[in-house]
Amino acid sequence: MIRRGLQVAARLGHHGTLPGGPCILPTFSPASAFGSSMDSLVSRFCQEKTDLKNYALPNASWCPDMLNLYHEFLEKTKANGWIRLPSFKSNRNRIQGLKLPLVLTVSSDKSDCHIFTRCIDTEGQGYEYVIFFHPSKKKSVCLFQPGPYLEGPPGFAHGGSLAAMIDETFSKTAYLAGEGLFTLNLDNRFKNLIRVGPLAVLKCLQKRETY
Amino acid sequence: MIRRGLQVAARLGHHGTLPGGPCILPTFSPASAFGSSMDSLVSRFCQEKTDLKNYALPNASWCPDMLNLYHEFLEKTKANGWIRLPSFKSNRNRIQGLKLPLVLTVSSDKSDCHIFTRCIDTEGQGYEYVIFFHPSKKKSVCLFQPGPYLEGPPGFAHGGSLAAMIDETFSKTAYLAGEGLFTLNLDNRFKNLIRVGPLAVLKCLQKRETY
Repeated sequence: MIRRGLQVAARLGHHGTLPGGPCILPTFSPASAFGSSMDSLVSRFCQEKTDLKNYALPNASWCPDMLNLYHEFLEKTKANGWIRLPSFKSNRNRIQGLKLPLVLTVSSDKSDCHIFTRCIDTEGQGYEYVIFFHPSKKKSVCLFQPGPYLEGPPGFAHGGSLAAMIDETFSKTAYLAGEGLFTLNLDNRFKNLIRVGPLAVLKCLQKRETY
Repeated sequence: MIRRGLQVAARLGHHGTLPGGPCILPTFSPASAFGSSMDSLVSRFCQEKTDLKNYALPNASWCPDMLNLYHEFLEKTKANGWIRLPSFKSNRNRIQGLKLPLVLTVSSDKSDCHIFTRCIDTEGQGYEYVIFFHPSKKKSVCLFQPGPYLEGPPGFAHGGSLAAMIDETFSKTAYLAGEGLFTLNLDNRFKNLIRVGPLAVLKCLQKRETY
């Protein structure tokens, strides 16, 4: 049987003549960066930095469903081994002190950088989310409320905004489980449209497989 | 040989108890929406709307490399069949008049919606891009300058921000070629890190294959 399908081939790269071209993804072991265990990674990552705004806390834009599920998971942090991950405007403070590949050394650049999923400051307009992580089960749940600035089709989230949220949740989970720092493959199969406005829930399970 | 690899399984969906849950991706033929050809699709899509800001025009944040390549492609629009696609804050105006599946009917909702890749208003901080499309070759080139609000690793673009730019360029290309409107699969293999700041070039070729 011959099936016809749409194939789109894309290549993304810096313009050939530019200085500071692409950098091959460096190899990096989070565990070796600290010489320590997942517990150490998690405790370092989850330090509450009182001088920085933690965006993973409820605000007035959160819908009742998001608030209810947030409080449900917050209860689970008390006895069931779940951890609420803090989330700041930038990863730079958190990365300082790690033995990173040279290319990723945090410079003294004082420019106003944002981690992409915190790129929109106005509450409720962009990404509203909080990630809960379970270290021993190596899984995460992301409570996610896409705002109207994430639109693709009218009334629905852009596929790219969903891919970014999935990538962020994946990479945090893999990093805290001591499995990686960089996304090499990001394969998405979209089955549903996700509305902007209501709560969406992203469940992420990290596992090793032989194949 | 047994290889070990990282596998991450994720499921994204609306919370089960919510009203207005996920919508199965509807089938949709852009050509049938107008009952017309690719030429008609392109000419409708490329209408210059003088009352709306076109974000696909140069601004003070564009680096010299981006400006140079922009003018190079602008020259090609005069004789070589390339078209510069306009880009507005939202797709809603452009979609009005299409025979869309009911779920996508544009409501009279007056809320401030942005297409995701135009979610950051400040020039140079987020997505700066322009897409050139070649109808007969069914290919596109996106000149893309990721700003510091798209950061993932320090100094480099977040994988999700690249996936979103790829998705946006793919979907516009497929739509104008009369092949689709929704992204079903989005598979990315990241080989390089892309710096925030300089120009990146995304080349997109749409083709049908038998397999």
